[in-house]
Amino acid sequence: MTSPSPWQLAARAEAMNPSAIREILKITERPGILNFAGGLPSPETFPVDAMRAACARVLAEGSPVARPSLQYAASEGLPELRQWVAAELGRQGARVAPDQVLITTGSQQGLDLLAKVLLDAGSRVLVETPTYLGALQAFAPMQPRFDSVTSDEGGITAQGLREQLQNGEHPRFVYLLPNFQNPSGRMQDEARRQQLIAVCREHGLPIVEDNPYGELWYDAPPPAPLLARWPEGVLYLGSFSKILAPGLRLGYVIAPRELYPKLLQAKQAADLHTPGFNQRVVAEVIRDGFLDRHVPTIRARYKVQRDAMLAALARELGPTGAEWTRPRGGMFIWLRLPAGLDAQALLPAAVDAGMAFVPGAPFFAGQPDPCTLRLSFVTSTPEQIDAGMAALGRVVRQAIL
Amino acid sequence: MTSPSPWQLAARAEAMNPSAIREILKITERPGILNFAGGLPSPETFPVDAMRAACARVLAEGSPVARPSLQYAASEGLPELRQWVAAELGRQGARVAPDQVLITTGSQQGLDLLAKVLLDAGSRVLVETPTYLGALQAFAPMQPRFDSVTSDEGGITAQGLREQLQNGEHPRFVYLLPNFQNPSGRMQDEARRQQLIAVCREHGLPIVEDNPYGELWYDAPPPAPLLARWPEGVLYLGSFSKILAPGLRLGYVIAPRELYPKLLQAKQAADLHTPGFNQRVVAEVIRDGFLDRHVPTIRARYKVQRDAMLAALARELGPTGAEWTRPRGGMFIWLRLPAGLDAQALLPAAVDAGMAFVPGAPFFAGQPDPCTLRLSFVTSTPEQIDAGMAALGRVVRQAIL
Repeated sequence: MTSPSPWQLAARAEAMNPSAIREILKITERPGILNFAGGLPSPETFPVDAMRAACARVLAEGSPVARPSLQYAASEGLPELRQWVAAELGRQGARVAPDQVLITTGSQQGLDLLAKVLLDAGSRVLVETPTYLGALQAFAPMQPRFDSVTSDEGGITAQGLREQLQNGEHPRFVYLLPNFQNPSGRMQDEARRQQLIAVCREHGLPIVEDNPYGELWYDAPPPAPLLARWPEGVLYLGSFSKILAPGLRLGYVIAPRELYPKLLQAKQAADLHTPGFNQRVVAEVIRDGFLDRHVPTIRARYKVQRDAMLAALARELGPTGAEWTRPRGGMFIWLRLPAGLDAQALLPAAVDAGMAFVPGAPFFAGQPDPCTLRLSFVTSTPEQIDAGMAALGRVVRQAIL
Repeated sequence: MTSPSPWQLAARAEAMNPSAIREILKITERPGILNFAGGLPSPETFPVDAMRAACARVLAEGSPVARPSLQYAASEGLPELRQWVAAELGRQGARVAPDQVLITTGSQQGLDLLAKVLLDAGSRVLVETPTYLGALQAFAPMQPRFDSVTSDEGGITAQGLREQLQNGEHPRFVYLLPNFQNPSGRMQDEARRQQLIAVCREHGLPIVEDNPYGELWYDAPPPAPLLARWPEGVLYLGSFSKILAPGLRLGYVIAPRELYPKLLQAKQAADLHTPGFNQRVVAEVIRDGFLDRHVPTIRARYKVQRDAMLAALARELGPTGAEWTRPRGGMFIWLRLPAGLDAQALLPAAVDAGMAFVPGAPFFAGQPDPCTLRLSFVTSTPEQIDAGMAALGRVVRQAIL
């Protein structure tokens, strides 16, 4: 005899469903496959030697920071790291005080915290078309309503934003990834940033600026962040995941002063503080300009891979009528298959042919474009990229027949 | 000219206020004070040598786990750690499969996740009197209604629980810390556990069992966990904070199978996964029975300190009419001042006399008992404990005059 379950789920949990992309990624994990579906940085870029040396210094016999780094710590984060973040944003043209910096357990946690502080059930949130899936997942438990803003190769358009602002409830914020966006790889240029800031200021529409990829530029540094242009109207998220290593789960939020205390309380309730040991080790790794030497090596590696993929796509997919972005940085290329093809439907054939991508549909908050897919170029060699794009080309040509 | 703020807070954030205890702790941080107010374990117990060796092994040249430990990882947690947790609970009499274990960023995150999955605004939650403040803070953003169950020196009473179940909406769960509870230090004995499980089963009232202190027993191991008695009705939280080091932020949830997928999705949305590096290092530290050798050294240390505090209290406070718990484990003693005294009002005089405690009021979800206060015995030497309790005795005697 089984008793009825004593558990009753919250309404928000009833609406939670297995991540579509997680299910998709399972079929791409067949051994031997050329995998362009992941969102992982290349493990070859992780500074293992520097990490090993930093751990040894932090935990050395007689180290004054050994036991403090293993103790409970302030919810705001390690002062040295907060100072580093403020100075780094200063280099990018934004005036940030260390006490505006909240260290988070990956920038994903920043998304969770800001959703708790800013979103009621039914609150309206504007997002790009397409947008970062992880943000949709982080915001979803607070049950907002997403509206997908018309976007082009430079991100959302000022016109699209104005149209959204003319209809319906005033949005709580617009969520933007100005630099080499996941999934599209696109970047907002200087002119677009100025236009968007003007519209947002005019309408009192706050911005959540998410910038995990800004340091990964391959041609020229991106324009100054939106935060530099409207400090009181922008909540900024950054991360060490793509420039050091994601397994440390170290990110940060830079918050306007009126929001900081609420985010801090949400942080305290969520996990008390981000692991102090990780913060101390990373502070130890990055002092003395380590990233100024390390990040260029990541850029050089990924630039070769990006160029290889763009060349292979031109060769293999160009004749099919497919179109794709030419990202100036980041990790991803966004591809639109010839009209009539469905990326999700094509995936099994691609996997059979030995390569995997992620269909684009899960990245749309609104009506998905079934022709789209995302390709990561950072974890494959140029040779693997050549072979993978050749396989994709064969599959697409087969499907057009 | 200043523009109006573009930000609008969520209703839950409007209700967030600075933590009372955080403000209180500020006045206790005067240099030179004998501080019994904290909730920190003793840093002398942190296994720095073992941590240093484990970091060196994980990050050694040629280590096959170095780069994987720095990469994005599964939201469920490291398989080795999940297996260890399942086996550990098995030793305590609970049958747990590794795939019921979710590794969390401290057990505080477990509280946050379960609140997201189980609580709607207005949902009823039953808690002990007093209860763990951090849980109230973790649950609060989901805006539940707390009801404080009548409790005695063995925790909530079966009678108190029955009374709560006769009135009002069916509670989503009852939140219990059966072992050496923070703040009271009290433990549910075998008979109490059986009574509570019987009432909960009879009424279909699920239990959230929080057990950060269970390993810190000084006289005899506590009875088997509630989880062992009603696997499908108990959500269990554990932590490495008190047996290794809190700065690693490593905890876990053991969930009934019907809840696991929802908690996993909430986890993924909250921070993708708990730092893989920390999980790998801890898995490396604890294999080969390290904790079987290490935890007894913590017990031996804290037992001496507990005994010193109980002796000092008997000597210094006994004559005043104050009463206090005699915890068989954990980190805290709960003291009730002679009737008519107010712990919060007494704190400035105690700080002036050179010692600090935490007033008990913030630990009550309902009507606080202003006579109560919490003392931690784990970060002070027996000599400091003697001096601190002597100071407290003087302050109390002065206040009675």
